[in-house]
Amino acid sequence: MTRNDTIRVEVGNVPIGAGAPVSVQSMTTADTRDPRATAAQVNELAAAGCEIVRLAVPDQEAADALPAILAATEVPLVADIHFDYRLALAALEAGIHKLRINPGNIGSEVRVAELAAAAKSRGVPIRIGVNAGSLPKSLVDSYGRTSRAMVEAALWHIGLLEKAGFDQIVVSMKASDVARTVEAYTMLAERVRYPLHVGVTEAGPPPEGLVKSSVGIGIILGQGIGDTIRVSLTGDHVAEVSAGRQILEALGLRRFGPTIVSCPTCARRRADIVRIADEVRSRIAGVTAPITIAVMGCEVNGPGEAADADVGLACGNGCGLVFRHGRIVRKADTAHMVEALVEAVLEEAGSHQVD
Amino acid sequence: MTRNDTIRVEVGNVPIGAGAPVSVQSMTTADTRDPRATAAQVNELAAAGCEIVRLAVPDQEAADALPAILAATEVPLVADIHFDYRLALAALEAGIHKLRINPGNIGSEVRVAELAAAAKSRGVPIRIGVNAGSLPKSLVDSYGRTSRAMVEAALWHIGLLEKAGFDQIVVSMKASDVARTVEAYTMLAERVRYPLHVGVTEAGPPPEGLVKSSVGIGIILGQGIGDTIRVSLTGDHVAEVSAGRQILEALGLRRFGPTIVSCPTCARRRADIVRIADEVRSRIAGVTAPITIAVMGCEVNGPGEAADADVGLACGNGCGLVFRHGRIVRKADTAHMVEALVEAVLEEAGSHQVD
Repeated sequence: MTRNDTIRVEVGNVPIGAGAPVSVQSMTTADTRDPRATAAQVNELAAAGCEIVRLAVPDQEAADALPAILAATEVPLVADIHFDYRLALAALEAGIHKLRINPGNIGSEVRVAELAAAAKSRGVPIRIGVNAGSLPKSLVDSYGRTSRAMVEAALWHIGLLEKAGFDQIVVSMKASDVARTVEAYTMLAERVRYPLHVGVTEAGPPPEGLVKSSVGIGIILGQGIGDTIRVSLTGDHVAEVSAGRQILEALGLRRFGPTIVSCPTCARRRADIVRIADEVRSRIAGVTAPITIAVMGCEVNGPGEAADADVGLACGNGCGLVFRHGRIVRKADTAHMVEALVEAVLEEAGSHQVD
Repeated sequence: MTRNDTIRVEVGNVPIGAGAPVSVQSMTTADTRDPRATAAQVNELAAAGCEIVRLAVPDQEAADALPAILAATEVPLVADIHFDYRLALAALEAGIHKLRINPGNIGSEVRVAELAAAAKSRGVPIRIGVNAGSLPKSLVDSYGRTSRAMVEAALWHIGLLEKAGFDQIVVSMKASDVARTVEAYTMLAERVRYPLHVGVTEAGPPPEGLVKSSVGIGIILGQGIGDTIRVSLTGDHVAEVSAGRQILEALGLRRFGPTIVSCPTCARRRADIVRIADEVRSRIAGVTAPITIAVMGCEVNGPGEAADADVGLACGNGCGLVFRHGRIVRKADTAHMVEALVEAVLEEAGSHQVD
């Protein structure tokens, strides 16, 4: 899959765009004015694999908490600011790694120029976040809340920063429905070379929210568009990170550790595949090598798919065959087949570490 | 989104292809030889919204159970048969609505001709199910387990049925990775006009399996390809049906009842959105009208998005505003705002029933 050609920006030590790995973002829910709670949540998200964490900076007290949060965390942080450009300046002063602010919302050109100069001197990129729910009235009047209006809004905000000599820009285009979101990203990608932050907003709670985000982000990334993603789920933010990683893995854009494939439970099954897959998952929790492990309960497709994976188990009648790269390496009775598979997985992971 | 042009086949009373609504399928896990357990599961899937149910017919005893299962169920049924064409003939005799069998696996041309004639006389379509894990050896030798090999396998099976004068064909192309699955469907859709059954096989347990299926099926449907879908999850089959419906809804291809959109929980929230969304969901469980309900906790995007939905609640400070089609219809304090929203939803649903 060829990726859309974009420029590259740096968020702390994480690059976005120009072929950099598509990064996974999320956002804290703690009150930013509480630096201890916020830093704990940032670190929890980072431990789950979140590579860039956003936090809301709604007032001066929140901006004042940023130095303490930055001191207690390592992952790059993004300050989310709505209207008050002084909060953006304070966040820059504190050492924030990226701003999310729409220059069209902060007032005069003088203020935009001041903000752009301050961000530029610190090498801090700015994300413009266009949201179908909060478009400028004039664009809604002309185009409705359409993808066209979203693209026009993005171009307007971008133009304000470019006029101020600033080009370290990332853009997001979020709407609550997949069709409009896909259209908006597709149209914008044809117009600009700035890296794009992809997400479907107001996706709702899982599983619906998970399906909606996976479909929307998947279609956009599948077109080669998108440089960093956030899955928005109403609820658990660590689940957002897992889902983001899973989307990237499903598309073959990133590998984050072992992938377990198993066959759909069907009347053909020869073993309790769900239980076996869970047992394998928990027994290899420490393995970080990007290997594919097949757990198959079916004699029809099992051996073929298991041969295809790095390591596989095809469960037959009373016994299991363990494969590595298509070659049978172990045969065990049902009581010992999971152990045989785990041994083969550890051998495979070991060979990855040596590579 | 324009759909790929296909011919239409009928599975009982459910059409597939040629612009018919994309249907949702699943498969029983009960032993088909137990007609009572199997029929109960078929009816459970149908109640969850499954429109076509497949069941495995591995032997004569399973085929013998089909009349009892057909008598106790109403949703169209598909018999999944691997090698024994006599089981396919028995399933046709029993009144099955569709067969899943690969003509290349059943032996001589004479048998294919006999099967095709029997299916044709009863108006029963045949699904050819190509799986990357069980391709003919000659194709694997030539092309590996690639999308190319999958397409060649499909064309070979199709050719056998066409030679027997049979064209009521549906084709599936399943692989355990999204890239290969998408490639295979895209290539096949350019070659044939038969309706396509879309799924990603061996997707694994949720949430990974859900993400992988949503991404894969979403990308294929998003290209206008696909006429019926099955989400394969290792685990709960009713969850497969819900996920299938959610994928179709996310793409705007079907509407199955109210959709609740809510904003991602963020530090800007004004209310406990997860709780409110859950409460709304349970209080409108009986509503079947395809209306969009927004539950927004944020004063920045809330009013805009809520105005966009059929009915919406934007939670402010100590109170909530209820909208219908962008017009404020109610204002209530926090304790009564959900009730006010539910009233507006019921009014909206009532107006849909009158339409």
